[in-house]
Amino acid sequence: MVKPLDPTVLRHAVSRGLDDFRLKEDNRQYREQLEERNNELKESLRLLREDQEAGRAVQLKLLPPFKGVFKTLQLEYSILPSLYLSGDFIDYFKISEDKFGFYLADVSGHGASSAFITILLKNMAHRLRQQYRAENLPELTPGKILSLANQELIPLGLGKHLAVFCAVIDTKKSEICYCSAAHFPPPVLMNGSDVLQLKGKGLPVGLFEGIEYEELTVALKDTFKLVLFSDGVLELIDLPSVADKETFLLEMVKQGTHDVAGISRYLGMEDIQAAPDDIAVLTVSQG
Amino acid sequence: MVKPLDPTVLRHAVSRGLDDFRLKEDNRQYREQLEERNNELKESLRLLREDQEAGRAVQLKLLPPFKGVFKTLQLEYSILPSLYLSGDFIDYFKISEDKFGFYLADVSGHGASSAFITILLKNMAHRLRQQYRAENLPELTPGKILSLANQELIPLGLGKHLAVFCAVIDTKKSEICYCSAAHFPPPVLMNGSDVLQLKGKGLPVGLFEGIEYEELTVALKDTFKLVLFSDGVLELIDLPSVADKETFLLEMVKQGTHDVAGISRYLGMEDIQAAPDDIAVLTVSQG
Repeated sequence: MVKPLDPTVLRHAVSRGLDDFRLKEDNRQYREQLEERNNELKESLRLLREDQEAGRAVQLKLLPPFKGVFKTLQLEYSILPSLYLSGDFIDYFKISEDKFGFYLADVSGHGASSAFITILLKNMAHRLRQQYRAENLPELTPGKILSLANQELIPLGLGKHLAVFCAVIDTKKSEICYCSAAHFPPPVLMNGSDVLQLKGKGLPVGLFEGIEYEELTVALKDTFKLVLFSDGVLELIDLPSVADKETFLLEMVKQGTHDVAGISRYLGMEDIQAAPDDIAVLTVSQG
Repeated sequence: MVKPLDPTVLRHAVSRGLDDFRLKEDNRQYREQLEERNNELKESLRLLREDQEAGRAVQLKLLPPFKGVFKTLQLEYSILPSLYLSGDFIDYFKISEDKFGFYLADVSGHGASSAFITILLKNMAHRLRQQYRAENLPELTPGKILSLANQELIPLGLGKHLAVFCAVIDTKKSEICYCSAAHFPPPVLMNGSDVLQLKGKGLPVGLFEGIEYEELTVALKDTFKLVLFSDGVLELIDLPSVADKETFLLEMVKQGTHDVAGISRYLGMEDIQAAPDDIAVLTVSQG
């Protein structure tokens, strides 16, 4: 059945058809642009991520095993980088028959620029130990380690400094000797039934020439749990003041949460998709 | 003027209207999704780029000035990283009153993981010089520098090795003493009117224990131009074989292109948006 043609309806239909076509065409073009841009972005991101992952693989090779044992001491740690590469770094090593050294370093900033410095640290610590052994020098103490690291870092002029907690435990004398180079928050030590903070007041490593670090010594009981954190951990605690956060950590240890898995759960570290800062936890315990 | 309603036209118009609405709605949703995804990608990319740029800033601090002078010697270099961070590295330094040392290192791979190693290199070279001066040891030679670097890199187990060309020029004796640790392509020396390649056959640094590097010596004329490249430069030369590419570089120097700006122009380094590999060029000249 052929209907009579109404010119207005026809004009309207043609105009609608053209509008439709233009709309579809505009949409198609815009979509295509967006899709193309999306693919370009994905490709750039893939390249950068691959690069960071390769860097992370190198950095992981520098870290010691996540669990370590030295005589009666057990050591465990975890590092959660805010990006792929971390400015937080941990190392531990035998110094002599009775002495065991370890440190937790937090390089200023995070990511690639800070991760660079962790490679230097590892290399320095390794060399120092070899040198002291080869040349039969008196044993390495935390203060010496930090002074030498300071002395080596400054001339490179990298504009990076480090907060470091460095300690040596003497298993024969049952004592811990430590230095805090601007390390924060203070480590918590559950010593038998006492709970205390290992405070110190040294300057950061890599900022000022010729610094000497004050060494502090604490007698250790048969059973103890020492817990170290990098300052990134403070961001996980939803309390108003830094003092409150310190107390929170002290209480956490006091109430029996002092292994890495327990602390991670307690602080919700496992659920974090993107950490605001690098986060490191290290525990050294006996008994 | 009110027209009579034709039910078919009306149905058609309503149906068209609905189709239109759905089309617009679908388009709007898809656009929004794409735009959102785009913004997320841009943000991830911005974070990673910022991180790489911060890393690059640290790496740049490790490099010596782009032009250097030691007595009658002029030195100049350029490094073009394939990403932000480079696995190619250059350093130069005074060794004694008459001796000037320099090296061009190409760490396996590129990007963050390789850039890490350049920090170690700088630190090693710096320390070696200090130690040799402080302890009044016999002067540093290229072979000693590379052996010591090898000795320090291997225990770190980073899975990275280096191709290095390391040389010392004695301005009093007018000679260059060098080692090639798997460095490629061979540097080109225009010595007076002679043009030759400084070939060597040492193994890369960081792979095998206890390597000694063969030192080769060449007498220098009053006027000479030495040009060193990292292997990334080969990717810029569109010739079928590596031998052809080597000849191309030799001819380039022979025909008078032996300063960094000229070489960059000649090889089209300035127009490269994304280098396929890190590219480094170093020139040392006299007269």
